[in-house]
Amino acid sequence: MRRILRDLPGPDLEAQTKVVARQTELTKPPGSLGRLEELAEWLAAWQGRAQPRIERPRIAVFAGTHGVARRGVSAYPPEVTQQMVKNFLSGGAAINQLAGTIDADLRIYELDTGHPTEDFTQVPAMSEARAANAMAYGMMAAEPGIDVLCLGEMGIANTTAAATLCAALFGGSGADWAGPGTGVQGAVLENKIAVIDEALARHRDVIAAHDPLTLLATVGGEELAAIAGAIVAARMGHIPVLLDGYACTAAAAVLFAADRRALDHCKVAHRSAEPGHARLLDKIVQRPLLDMDMRLGEASGAALVVPILKAACACHNGMATFAEAGVSGKA
Amino acid sequence: MRRILRDLPGPDLEAQTKVVARQTELTKPPGSLGRLEELAEWLAAWQGRAQPRIERPRIAVFAGTHGVARRGVSAYPPEVTQQMVKNFLSGGAAINQLAGTIDADLRIYELDTGHPTEDFTQVPAMSEARAANAMAYGMMAAEPGIDVLCLGEMGIANTTAAATLCAALFGGSGADWAGPGTGVQGAVLENKIAVIDEALARHRDVIAAHDPLTLLATVGGEELAAIAGAIVAARMGHIPVLLDGYACTAAAAVLFAADRRALDHCKVAHRSAEPGHARLLDKIVQRPLLDMDMRLGEASGAALVVPILKAACACHNGMATFAEAGVSGKA
Repeated sequence: MRRILRDLPGPDLEAQTKVVARQTELTKPPGSLGRLEELAEWLAAWQGRAQPRIERPRIAVFAGTHGVARRGVSAYPPEVTQQMVKNFLSGGAAINQLAGTIDADLRIYELDTGHPTEDFTQVPAMSEARAANAMAYGMMAAEPGIDVLCLGEMGIANTTAAATLCAALFGGSGADWAGPGTGVQGAVLENKIAVIDEALARHRDVIAAHDPLTLLATVGGEELAAIAGAIVAARMGHIPVLLDGYACTAAAAVLFAADRRALDHCKVAHRSAEPGHARLLDKIVQRPLLDMDMRLGEASGAALVVPILKAACACHNGMATFAEAGVSGKA
Repeated sequence: MRRILRDLPGPDLEAQTKVVARQTELTKPPGSLGRLEELAEWLAAWQGRAQPRIERPRIAVFAGTHGVARRGVSAYPPEVTQQMVKNFLSGGAAINQLAGTIDADLRIYELDTGHPTEDFTQVPAMSEARAANAMAYGMMAAEPGIDVLCLGEMGIANTTAAATLCAALFGGSGADWAGPGTGVQGAVLENKIAVIDEALARHRDVIAAHDPLTLLATVGGEELAAIAGAIVAARMGHIPVLLDGYACTAAAAVLFAADRRALDHCKVAHRSAEPGHARLLDKIVQRPLLDMDMRLGEASGAALVVPILKAACACHNGMATFAEAGVSGKA
């Protein structure tokens, strides 16, 4: 993985240049479609075609279990992760409905949920080998032929892992990065912050060494490692990526910390209501597309952006030029 | 119209209450779908059904011509309004592509574009009778059976009319409410501001009388009057409304100035890049759903929100409850 990260493919500048040139000819004031124009350019650059398309969207949801969940950091008991996987498989969760409205290919990837990671306040969450396996598993989600990959997660206690990972990658304390997650407050939130600070103290020396992939194994989680793997595989396969909320973006931030260009093929779909997300977006220099006060995970925010990408493609590919439509240019 | 405005129907509180109750039972942390939950409630309240739906969206684009366009306030010549109507009818504009991606019923309503309104720096833009006719024409867009009505406009110089109307309704000067519109800057923008201030001075006495419908006729435009009519008709017909950008919202603001509850069945779809829009959203107490740096009009921002409404309905109607899915509740 470290070798792959050193050799990531770049954007297709020829396709991007063609999109920019065509935008100026379409029947609208220059720039008036705002971020739709930015998205058409971005899709062209990373799909490698001047006529970008979103016909085959995939949603990949990774579920993982966390040893730190035993520390009472969530509003829900640890077994909810596996119960929600069943709910995904029987079609009852939010992401099932969202996938249905956009005709997306929804895949649920269950990590080794029978064997939670270790409680990372005591020892590393997992070995680097287990993290590498999880990353390799995640890479399977980026199959050829997909036009965009929406990434999301499910895992009781994973906002605790995300907050610890962010603090380890970018500095700061539990109070800087922790939030309500599934809805904790008061003493439970105080405990969550203390648990994060305990982990940061425990792994002080590892954190000081600044190796993002080691930090992912030390204070991350299997579903977070899988997401990082999926992002890398999508880059290799010319598949643009929509990142979801806090836990998903924290996983992606591991790659950003390793190489600032590693997320150029990714857009953060929405700003989560989880307060650490806004701080994280600043660190990785991403402006989210939506701000809907959502904080569910499951790739729910990413799924909402798929129709916006379709709209960007439709406008770019389908609009008439001034010459075709016989519309006068600027006075 | 004044009589209708005094007797607008309210929300269906029974449907809304049912939605709120069901939200708490669905397999997600309470409130974690954020504004999707707010939208499900809002749709239920104004459609008058506990299972809101967005199966038949309509997009209505109103085109009008402005006498004030002769004053050099736009980057484009006045004839572009009619040229763009042809472009709409032949399927080449942005809104045609956007309507296609969401399978919406797109209707173009051309006001009396062969006869522009008067230059309102000199005389009222139109008589109250002509404004009333335009409102009545707009009411036709709210046909029974539509699940949501997206409103938008086309009209060279109509951000000048919108800015003048906003200043007349809410106070302030041309500099407070004017912006680039189709892309004017420098001396042309200075001229646009001066034209607005000239109109505000000319109609000082009418403005002081604070009658919103009279102000719509005095410094508005036919397409703006039609939008106001469509909003009222949608309210009568239990059809929620998505408002688009600056000109569209300015038209709606006439109704808000007449009755603060008049836009309760409306959501502003997006924050336009036109700077006056943010100021206007504060005045009418609306938080837009999207912020995509768009400033095209044509209902383009409103169309982008339709899939988000579909998503809100799908989650609300389709998700399993905790009991149905066998998922544990809060610890």
